[in-house]
Amino acid sequence: MKKVPTLRGKSVLTVFYEPSTRTCSSFEIAAKRLSADVTNFQVSTSSVVKGESILDTVDTLQAMKVDYLIVRHKSAGVANLIAKNTKASVLNAGDGFHSHPTQALLDAFTARETLGDLTGKRIVIAGDIRHSRVARSTSTILRKLGAEVAYLGPGPLVPPESHSGIQAFRSWDEAFAWKPDIVYLLRVQMERQHGAFFPSIGEYNKVYGLTGERLKIVRDAGIWVMHPGPVNRGVELDDAVMSYERCLVNQQVENGIAVRMAALYWLQPEGGPRDEG
Amino acid sequence: MKKVPTLRGKSVLTVFYEPSTRTCSSFEIAAKRLSADVTNFQVSTSSVVKGESILDTVDTLQAMKVDYLIVRHKSAGVANLIAKNTKASVLNAGDGFHSHPTQALLDAFTARETLGDLTGKRIVIAGDIRHSRVARSTSTILRKLGAEVAYLGPGPLVPPESHSGIQAFRSWDEAFAWKPDIVYLLRVQMERQHGAFFPSIGEYNKVYGLTGERLKIVRDAGIWVMHPGPVNRGVELDDAVMSYERCLVNQQVENGIAVRMAALYWLQPEGGPRDEG
Amino acid sequence: MKKVPTLRGKSVLTVFYEPSTRTCSSFEIAAKRLSADVTNFQVSTSSVVKGESILDTVDTLQAMKVDYLIVRHKSAGVANLIAKNTKASVLNAGDGFHSHPTQALLDAFTARETLGDLTGKRIVIAGDIRHSRVARSTSTILRKLGAEVAYLGPGPLVPPESHSGIQAFRSWDEAFAWKPDIVYLLRVQMERQHGAFFPSIGEYNKVYGLTGERLKIVRDAGIWVMHPGPVNRGVELDDAVMSYERCLVNQQVENGIAVRMAALYWLQPEGGPRDEG
Repeated sequence: MKKVPTLRGKSVLTVFYEPSTRTCSSFEIAAKRLSADVTNFQVSTSSVVKGESILDTVDTLQAMKVDYLIVRHKSAGVANLIAKNTKASVLNAGDGFHSHPTQALLDAFTARETLGDLTGKRIVIAGDIRHSRVARSTSTILRKLGAEVAYLGPGPLVPPESHSGIQAFRSWDEAFAWKPDIVYLLRVQMERQHGAFFPSIGEYNKVYGLTGERLKIVRDAGIWVMHPGPVNRGVELDDAVMSYERCLVNQQVENGIAVRMAALYWLQPEGGPRDEG
Repeated sequence: MKKVPTLRGKSVLTVFYEPSTRTCSSFEIAAKRLSADVTNFQVSTSSVVKGESILDTVDTLQAMKVDYLIVRHKSAGVANLIAKNTKASVLNAGDGFHSHPTQALLDAFTARETLGDLTGKRIVIAGDIRHSRVARSTSTILRKLGAEVAYLGPGPLVPPESHSGIQAFRSWDEAFAWKPDIVYLLRVQMERQHGAFFPSIGEYNKVYGLTGERLKIVRDAGIWVMHPGPVNRGVELDDAVMSYERCLVNQQVENGIAVRMAALYWLQPEGGPRDEG
Repeated sequence: MKKVPTLRGKSVLTVFYEPSTRTCSSFEIAAKRLSADVTNFQVSTSSVVKGESILDTVDTLQAMKVDYLIVRHKSAGVANLIAKNTKASVLNAGDGFHSHPTQALLDAFTARETLGDLTGKRIVIAGDIRHSRVARSTSTILRKLGAEVAYLGPGPLVPPESHSGIQAFRSWDEAFAWKPDIVYLLRVQMERQHGAFFPSIGEYNKVYGLTGERLKIVRDAGIWVMHPGPVNRGVELDDAVMSYERCLVNQQVENGIAVRMAALYWLQPEGGPRDEG
């Protein structure tokens, strides 16, 4: 992809309170393709300063007069809190269970690129909906674009329709009967305690994973497969899915850079496209 | 802040044996604003090579032919040792209890920006003076600029005047009676064993912290507050201090970048302003 | 060294599954001197994703559309596997016990710069040959350039000549009698379990180290000394070796940057010198 001079002279600071190699690299590559300068403000759990509030850190970052802050934090609302207290443009790279807007944008872009107009298109999001900022953000944008979204997952991990307004399936049979255009598999967060929600990883794969068996149905119906990455082979999907011709995982990664370039472009701190009426 | 082409084509290597997100980022942003290329030589305590001396590392860094080395190390004198053994320009980003020159420069700059000529101005530095390279460096530059400096802190942590030539107060009452223009609070290094020096963090805050109560006196007297950051709320200062209108903490961070840009500018390895008579 | 615009607009991703400050920095500085943009894809052992295969990661990296991948991995063949599955140019920065091509190139360059034509020149490589990708790569290139190579080290750590085709000495006396032009000392990997191979570090130094005593012989014979760095003083060499006038360690580091610049130049993904017939 070609480097363009759009953000030459602009400075970007990545501030990741939770490590995320992929999202951070994706933003960094996007910013550098726009000719911005990128500095990683390396916050690790271990080095986060006790006694210093988020807002003190924000004040510090604001004082450094960078043009962009790209923030990931384990608590919902942190990016928003920061955005309200700085003149820099803030991009939320994921905040707790709350939201992950650039993931949503890249998912929507990938879905539209694949299916065209999303009006009436059907997407099943499968997995741990309750703890997933991806599910929350991606379902929101897809519905805004006219798609119908449904959830699939273990009872305790999927909010009831009465709460979310989104129908919830309990089995792949129900989901397939709904005739989805896309199945979007969430990543099982292996580091999280799942004992309370489902018996074992093997059990999860058997009941909610996209197994080789289910892939046959998916292939026959021409359904597309999405996943935010990185995938857990043998958990939410089996090996064969990754070489399935309608698997969009790598397309999502590629679009992630383009979408983040676009977000950086539109959020130029001043004199940018937002200000040009 | 605008990016300038001053150091285009120059290379900067940050070599931090002690982690310091803020100082390292500040240098990195400063160097990039001058259009230099920055590489982080990532030395962590765990990966520091046993059996390799500092000078072997210096030889390696010298052989890489970078233009600048920005060095932090837990032992006093390391930056100086490195500077004597390389042609690169070396900036000391903190060496043990010894010194932290760019911190001193940014503190002096902030004080002058705020008070004008420092001749006869009075600054109280409060906290663990003995183990503070900031206290050492900042008191030195302030006195060179004509200011009077006094220390405040627990007996075992403040050198006697007979040793340092700087008067030592034991209480805020004494300090306030001296009519300071600035109180400069040092950060309590929470990770250090303080048991030998003061009973507890709570006790420290009560006796040496800038509490809400003391802030009233500070405000009435129009005293400015400085702190090298990051602050420990509830330890060396209470919440209200951070929103006090004469708190200079963020100004210090902002000036830190400008001062480091200036230091990089003046220390250009060859053909720079130093060589122009 | 002067920055050149050769790779302006090109993007480089370093992907180090094993940490290596020096090699990574050397590549990073080399790439920046060529005006490429460098992003570190920070993979640590702890964050390597369970369940995701190397090839999934490759697909992700490929999808990011970077121009170069610089890869280090603890398993032999990983860089090659990646190169076969991506359009990016892949540089192997060390794969297990297998190979370390840019180390070999910089060693060969340093040897030729020092000795001129290598035909018939003799190099003894001393240390843990069996587990050394440096020994494997460097001996291969030196022999291709016409040099004779011999090994020296403890029996269990040196493959027999019948296997490698390279004669194996058991003592420095034998090695010196062979009249080498260069002795190339390998680094003892202190973190590896050596109990099975030699009794102790002190014993290793005594029998296979380049001690002060042996340095006299080396100096009298005008033999050059090489080492891939970082050195373990008191293990594979004694202090005096580092200030020996024919010690090439720092020259190797310096040449490492030049050689990596050359490798990046020759491996330009398209329209580069390889394509110009």
